[in-house]
Amino acid sequence: MTHPYDFIKGHGTENDFVVLPDPAGSVHGALSDERVRALCDRHAGIGADGVLRVIRTSAYAPDWPGAPSGVSGEWFMDYRNADGSIAEMCGNGTRVFAAYLHLYDGVGDRVTVATRAGDKTLTLDGELWTVDLGEPRLLGWSDISVGEATWKARHVDMGNPHAVALIDAPVADLDLTRQPAFDAATYPRGVNVELVERVSAAHLRMRVHERGVGETRSCGTGIGATAVATMEADGHVADGATYTVDVPGGRLTVTWTSENRALLTGPAALVARGSTSL
Amino acid sequence: MTHPYDFIKGHGTENDFVVLPDPAGSVHGALSDERVRALCDRHAGIGADGVLRVIRTSAYAPDWPGAPSGVSGEWFMDYRNADGSIAEMCGNGTRVFAAYLHLYDGVGDRVTVATRAGDKTLTLDGELWTVDLGEPRLLGWSDISVGEATWKARHVDMGNPHAVALIDAPVADLDLTRQPAFDAATYPRGVNVELVERVSAAHLRMRVHERGVGETRSCGTGIGATAVATMEADGHVADGATYTVDVPGGRLTVTWTSENRALLTGPAALVARGSTSL
Repeated sequence: MTHPYDFIKGHGTENDFVVLPDPAGSVHGALSDERVRALCDRHAGIGADGVLRVIRTSAYAPDWPGAPSGVSGEWFMDYRNADGSIAEMCGNGTRVFAAYLHLYDGVGDRVTVATRAGDKTLTLDGELWTVDLGEPRLLGWSDISVGEATWKARHVDMGNPHAVALIDAPVADLDLTRQPAFDAATYPRGVNVELVERVSAAHLRMRVHERGVGETRSCGTGIGATAVATMEADGHVADGATYTVDVPGGRLTVTWTSENRALLTGPAALVARGSTSL
Repeated sequence: MTHPYDFIKGHGTENDFVVLPDPAGSVHGALSDERVRALCDRHAGIGADGVLRVIRTSAYAPDWPGAPSGVSGEWFMDYRNADGSIAEMCGNGTRVFAAYLHLYDGVGDRVTVATRAGDKTLTLDGELWTVDLGEPRLLGWSDISVGEATWKARHVDMGNPHAVALIDAPVADLDLTRQPAFDAATYPRGVNVELVERVSAAHLRMRVHERGVGETRSCGTGIGATAVATMEADGHVADGATYTVDVPGGRLTVTWTSENRALLTGPAALVARGSTSL
């Protein structure tokens, strides 16, 4: 048995990834759905929420799935969901991607990563990476229900749709094994639901039910949506406020800058490296 | 960041393990519960159902957890459940352990592995490993219920307790997200429940709900219990019959020898190797 190619296992607040170093694209080519599924299989494979292939942007062939356009970052984050499908962007994934480049490719404390959602610039401060999630859009209100309880939820567009409800009960007590009920007219293609409890003035606790996935340990855009919806309610619209958000997988902070952008700051851990025959 | 010790990831019919090479016991010492939990964590770690430390039997200190006694095998399978607790034996784990010794330590097609349940001899034929599960004991009958349906189940003791019900419906349709109801007087410390569908004369399909765990992809002793309970019903008590058992994680065979022992045969896959800082 041989293990022909290398991998790194890492996570950002327990949103976990198999990182595949492939600078020239010569190891994995187009990177098949089958290989992504085999790697992410939590029993027969290594196990992860997704794959982050590290490839030079110039090496990604135009006819491979979801080739990036209009980006200038040297390194392209070829992100795939565990089922093999292509994803535009992943906030937790960008931190792990940057941590890989920092540790193994000698990039400094600032790196611009090309993604399918454009260039994303990340900065390292101590052990924490910050990524710019872009401009949040705050839209209307609708109802979200978990079991018998119903709350008003803010519609926040972070490039993907979120329904953020600040609730008056401990989020630890919620049963999120089922999809929370939402307004299908507001969210015709489904929604990520964030249930939020206030710990103190600028400190929130949140659990998230991700569209098509179920409850997860952490969701980068959901954390951004949670913070800006609460900041708006508190009268901190794009004024540089920073809120702390605790999720089951760890602690992050969000700053809503005066340029109306949401910056997400959190850890990235690279826990193992090796080679595999999957 | 350094990754100071080595691991291998492997599985037997999708019952998966982190294998830790530690021949002299000098890498992991007593092997802490915390390290086992960190390695087996499916988001922050590598992820597995358990850890198999490969250590020379002579190197395992008498004051470490669950030191083996009365065994002669050169290599001791120091098996820990994902929560860090000690386990006596694991049928799927022994095959992965033997496959590791065969690939990395040059043992041949036959190896005696010391376990907390005594010496276990494994043999390799082609790509399949066979392990002797010992003498099954067939006890009484009681009822098992899944949802609204109730069936008579055979009590089989494989060192641990099993309730095996041959049912008249496709096992694929069962909802095993909850613990099946069982007779607490028969199984005061809980029971592993096997629901079995007949595919053809000597071919079964089975799903298993493991005590304290929930549904799993494969359970070695449960597969043994399933086969011998059905063989008994078919008039094949310890007569050398071989039955095939399909589980969600793969296909295995069981032979009930004339010496009244159950032999379990199945695959073992080593899918990755590497080093970690967990």
